[in-house]
Amino acid sequence: MSAIPDVMRAAVLAEPGRIRLSELPVPEPGPEDVLVRVHRASLCGTDLKIRSRAFFEDGGPAAGTFVPGHEYAGMVVAVGSTVDEFHVGDRVVTEAHRGCMRCANCLAGAYTSCLNSGLRAKGHRTQGMTVNGGFADYAVNHVSTLHQLPDPVSFDAGVVLTTAGTVMHAFNVLHDLLVGARVAVLGPGPIGLLAVQVAKELGADLVALLGTREGRLKLGRVAGADLSLNSHDSDSVARVREAAGGQGVDIVLECSGAGAAVDDALRLVKRGGQVVLVGFFGEPVTVDLNRAVMNGVTVHGVRGEGAGSLARAVALAGQGRLETASLITHHFPLEAVSEAFDTYAERRGDAMKVMLDIVPDQPGGGT
Amino acid sequence: MSAIPDVMRAAVLAEPGRIRLSELPVPEPGPEDVLVRVHRASLCGTDLKIRSRAFFEDGGPAAGTFVPGHEYAGMVVAVGSTVDEFHVGDRVVTEAHRGCMRCANCLAGAYTSCLNSGLRAKGHRTQGMTVNGGFADYAVNHVSTLHQLPDPVSFDAGVVLTTAGTVMHAFNVLHDLLVGARVAVLGPGPIGLLAVQVAKELGADLVALLGTREGRLKLGRVAGADLSLNSHDSDSVARVREAAGGQGVDIVLECSGAGAAVDDALRLVKRGGQVVLVGFFGEPVTVDLNRAVMNGVTVHGVRGEGAGSLARAVALAGQGRLETASLITHHFPLEAVSEAFDTYAERRGDAMKVMLDIVPDQPGGGT
Amino acid sequence: MSAIPDVMRAAVLAEPGRIRLSELPVPEPGPEDVLVRVHRASLCGTDLKIRSRAFFEDGGPAAGTFVPGHEYAGMVVAVGSTVDEFHVGDRVVTEAHRGCMRCANCLAGAYTSCLNSGLRAKGHRTQGMTVNGGFADYAVNHVSTLHQLPDPVSFDAGVVLTTAGTVMHAFNVLHDLLVGARVAVLGPGPIGLLAVQVAKELGADLVALLGTREGRLKLGRVAGADLSLNSHDSDSVARVREAAGGQGVDIVLECSGAGAAVDDALRLVKRGGQVVLVGFFGEPVTVDLNRAVMNGVTVHGVRGEGAGSLARAVALAGQGRLETASLITHHFPLEAVSEAFDTYAERRGDAMKVMLDIVPDQPGGGT
Amino acid sequence: MSAIPDVMRAAVLAEPGRIRLSELPVPEPGPEDVLVRVHRASLCGTDLKIRSRAFFEDGGPAAGTFVPGHEYAGMVVAVGSTVDEFHVGDRVVTEAHRGCMRCANCLAGAYTSCLNSGLRAKGHRTQGMTVNGGFADYAVNHVSTLHQLPDPVSFDAGVVLTTAGTVMHAFNVLHDLLVGARVAVLGPGPIGLLAVQVAKELGADLVALLGTREGRLKLGRVAGADLSLNSHDSDSVARVREAAGGQGVDIVLECSGAGAAVDDALRLVKRGGQVVLVGFFGEPVTVDLNRAVMNGVTVHGVRGEGAGSLARAVALAGQGRLETASLITHHFPLEAVSEAFDTYAERRGDAMKVMLDIVPDQPGGGT
Repeated sequence: MSAIPDVMRAAVLAEPGRIRLSELPVPEPGPEDVLVRVHRASLCGTDLKIRSRAFFEDGGPAAGTFVPGHEYAGMVVAVGSTVDEFHVGDRVVTEAHRGCMRCANCLAGAYTSCLNSGLRAKGHRTQGMTVNGGFADYAVNHVSTLHQLPDPVSFDAGVVLTTAGTVMHAFNVLHDLLVGARVAVLGPGPIGLLAVQVAKELGADLVALLGTREGRLKLGRVAGADLSLNSHDSDSVARVREAAGGQGVDIVLECSGAGAAVDDALRLVKRGGQVVLVGFFGEPVTVDLNRAVMNGVTVHGVRGEGAGSLARAVALAGQGRLETASLITHHFPLEAVSEAFDTYAERRGDAMKVMLDIVPDQPGGGT
Repeated sequence: MSAIPDVMRAAVLAEPGRIRLSELPVPEPGPEDVLVRVHRASLCGTDLKIRSRAFFEDGGPAAGTFVPGHEYAGMVVAVGSTVDEFHVGDRVVTEAHRGCMRCANCLAGAYTSCLNSGLRAKGHRTQGMTVNGGFADYAVNHVSTLHQLPDPVSFDAGVVLTTAGTVMHAFNVLHDLLVGARVAVLGPGPIGLLAVQVAKELGADLVALLGTREGRLKLGRVAGADLSLNSHDSDSVARVREAAGGQGVDIVLECSGAGAAVDDALRLVKRGGQVVLVGFFGEPVTVDLNRAVMNGVTVHGVRGEGAGSLARAVALAGQGRLETASLITHHFPLEAVSEAFDTYAERRGDAMKVMLDIVPDQPGGGT
Repeated sequence: MSAIPDVMRAAVLAEPGRIRLSELPVPEPGPEDVLVRVHRASLCGTDLKIRSRAFFEDGGPAAGTFVPGHEYAGMVVAVGSTVDEFHVGDRVVTEAHRGCMRCANCLAGAYTSCLNSGLRAKGHRTQGMTVNGGFADYAVNHVSTLHQLPDPVSFDAGVVLTTAGTVMHAFNVLHDLLVGARVAVLGPGPIGLLAVQVAKELGADLVALLGTREGRLKLGRVAGADLSLNSHDSDSVARVREAAGGQGVDIVLECSGAGAAVDDALRLVKRGGQVVLVGFFGEPVTVDLNRAVMNGVTVHGVRGEGAGSLARAVALAGQGRLETASLITHHFPLEAVSEAFDTYAERRGDAMKVMLDIVPDQPGGGT
Repeated sequence: MSAIPDVMRAAVLAEPGRIRLSELPVPEPGPEDVLVRVHRASLCGTDLKIRSRAFFEDGGPAAGTFVPGHEYAGMVVAVGSTVDEFHVGDRVVTEAHRGCMRCANCLAGAYTSCLNSGLRAKGHRTQGMTVNGGFADYAVNHVSTLHQLPDPVSFDAGVVLTTAGTVMHAFNVLHDLLVGARVAVLGPGPIGLLAVQVAKELGADLVALLGTREGRLKLGRVAGADLSLNSHDSDSVARVREAAGGQGVDIVLECSGAGAAVDDALRLVKRGGQVVLVGFFGEPVTVDLNRAVMNGVTVHGVRGEGAGSLARAVALAGQGRLETASLITHHFPLEAVSEAFDTYAERRGDAMKVMLDIVPDQPGGGT
């Protein structure tokens, strides 16, 4: 283990729309914190909003001071005075949200819906959003946001587990086993493709994937989807319903963020079924909501991982049951962070997960 | 107890848009059924759709054969061969839905979302919708759709309990106590006004009612609403949020069926809160659904009473804790059923619950 | 498809303690029933109580009239007038319980806790307990008690799914995903061994099996248990807790029916964890229940399959993820039903599932 | 508001079995803490264990250093640097438990089942058990353990709400409305008597109280119990079942801590019903647990208040719907703390809640 330096490389927000490499002091962990040597980090749609500063209501932090990045994995290099849950040398993946843990929601277990969201002074933090994140050599995380990576899980795979954690949370809110269920997944992005895998592994009997890009639908078939259909085909909803015994599916996961998908979801789901909204919608949605009323359908909005969800994803990966490599389409060194953002934003080469290799692979060994 | 006649008066569907009085044979109860002498019945929005035949996908039953009415109370006059739960002379209120009790939803307790809905042969029935209902002297009900009226609850009050059962079901799907909760109710119709009462009785700490008609909002204040605001006032949402500690209410009940109310609901509810949709929407709704995603909000579509909900309403009324008389604005004899429909459809005299007095009050005794 | 005969072979209760082969009329299905040609049936502990007539509070049915057997699979040979869910030739497995579907529990989805349990007139039936069961050539089942067997699932495997359905129900009452959970299973009988498999398949991260017979513990290791320990070893509880990170397991399934196991369960489970009691206890249990109070532990009593549980087991088997052959230790023809009972009762040859081959395998084809 | 002194009166643990008045420095609130001027505090059974030092596994703190007391109410006199939820002058009631808020249980909302229970360094605290409590002029509380007292609720009433919070938590774990339910309460101590009141207020249709002391049963009738029976009467269980329609009650709250009560609970509860264990058992319990298995009964162990439960109790009291004065049988000044303990321990004068009046009532004003 090499000594921790005083300064480090960090990708920082410059003026709106630009991200650049800079040097920042290595942060100090507080008593409940852990200092992580970041090995790998990946980009998410929210990072694009952060880059454009559309994410911040007040224009955001001063140029050159803020480090984005909320999907990352690395190695523990120092722990705060009260931390014995982790030790130097532990390989870890991180989650974004730490609640204030004093509001009614946090006390009731809903820390991703913290009522003091954004209030750093009250203890709330979101890595890479309200506090510095992981597009840097080092990051500080609250101990509760870390999960140990099992040996067989690489850092690359670990980073993708942050996305799989969202999938787990989406299924988690249903408070039910998945085995035997009939599931439709809308939107074959990384979340949707992981949802297909997770649903099949947890025993779903039918998993139908709907999307618009043939290449992605093909990936869905590889991921295990029983049906992988183009949602522009006028009979796609009917075909899924038919495959589900004519009565609709038990569960729909909306992962596309496309407004029209909500109507599809309500036409796909059975009476008394459940819809989970995972994708972010860019604008108001027009939807035949009466279907939900007439059919006793519940619609859950879900954001981020939620309690225990990332741990579930880590467990499944540790059991060798989650294939993540095919979702990682690009690797860049930290120095190329700007190109990485552009690649992701413009979907160059059908980019899915774009990875920053902050610590590159060692010759003769994995990271 | 007088003898049961062979024929009875019944309000029947004539051509579309018209309802008329007729004579029909008194129906025979099957082994699991109960024959009810209907004393009082009330009209609901669905009855208007039935009258116009817009309710039936296939044009509906032949003229002169079908009896609407799903909100009624009366007296048991005969029971089927297997029935010992009720006895001749029992005063009862009825619920509309009997599931097939063999599909996956019915077996799991969700009989109002029966997957064999409408299939009479498989055992599903909806009184006054798929089988004859209560706008007649007699009606046959499955034993599972009846609830004994406690002595202090009149037939008039009993009929209104069918609406209160919907309110109970709306709260029931939250799987939580109401005591201490902050609740907003949108739409001061009968459902909304009963929701205000029920929420206060069950211990809600703040109940805010939003509507557009001043007369109704006034009734809401009488019903116990802590706030009763005009939803057209631009600051009504803000005022409710402020009264709820600035963070929004825990629960919103949408009872208006107005599309704009869904956006209000999502702006009223706290992060991690719950919205229940009870009102029927006439057309697609445009809504900023991203609020639900970002804030982890759950939206429940609810239809009808659901298991045990009417029993809960009956219990609360039996405890003398539900005022229903003020909701009944009109009484008509069965012969005036057509005028009763017109009164309700045109909201003459600010009609709320319009009651058919099928057995009129006895001199010297209540019904 | 050969014609249905008028009479059939049936194993019937004789005097207490004796079961014998007899001839009975082939039963007629009612409008909601299905007539099943039984291919395979297996014995369960309850069948022993039935044979001894200890099961019946009133001494039980007249000698020679009653057919036990509630675990069986076969082929549909006739359907009632309202049945279109199944067709002649369908391969099916059956569940034991049909609720009255009119009491408060059945209406709420808890038909295995039917409040009219035993009242045949009100519609409640338990195959092989209150109505004739499957130790015969033919059996009548309510349509809601049947599940189609996927092609790859043999009748033998299908019969064992009735036991796997109990396991699914035990996990079902937890209203949670299993992935990532740490689970202890007490009692390596058929239920316990299936529980090990199911837990691993559904993603449990640690599954510990405790028992007393080394042969069974060995089977547990084959079934996938991470730990398979002798509960007589004084450190077995401590070893499981240590493997679960020192804090105890999330879930304990008690499948042994041994009184001492309940204390083990409460020592194994983490604070806030859940215990499911599946095994039947022969006598009162002495237990340090204060552990449950101090640690906020919930203890669920579970009986039989419950809504949808058998369907889940069928789904997992259809996915090729449930190994059942090793649990079937003995096969007997129906003529040897008495020997089959003795073999099971005396655990001859470490009997686990003892199978009656009512229709023997065809040369050149499976059953 | 008078200035905060440097030293204060405090009741401290002396040698085992003795409690005495002493002087201690007034504690300093940390950044997330609030300093409370204690006005009233009451004794609970746990305080007796603490006095005897049987509560502490390691013999407990050094004599003269530790202040017990976890049921108290008072006024905010100083707040930590991050606290804006409360202000100087606010009247508050406190709860005992603050979780570590970093273990899996705390993150999931189960902070009273904190896996780091007792580990002060990791943030866990239990007032009056692992940190100093409220039998003193001042106490420091984490902000999350405080609830504002509505104006009409006196400090005396506020203190009793800590007990009512336990009742709320017991009902809370059922995840259901109470309205219309049939409830049995075992043990007419303060918890049981409050449970009777709360159940009736929240709409329970039948509340039966079972106990052994006639005086207490009489208080139960005053509190609203529909039945108040001596559990030594051989027909008491049968009478309650009969009053509940012959099928048993939906919910049993065991508040007595008497071993025999658990069997009563399992005989009282309906099939599929729920039992909540609130009372602490002094020794192992012998119970016919097979009843729970055969009848699908769930048994919840519950300890302390749990998330939001005290807030619910405060709300109900603020609505003027909780009578607590009759539960307070004794008042002592802080100087008489030793006599207060003896009075409570020996149940002198049928002591129920024994109150320490740390700030006595002002002439011409309430506390």
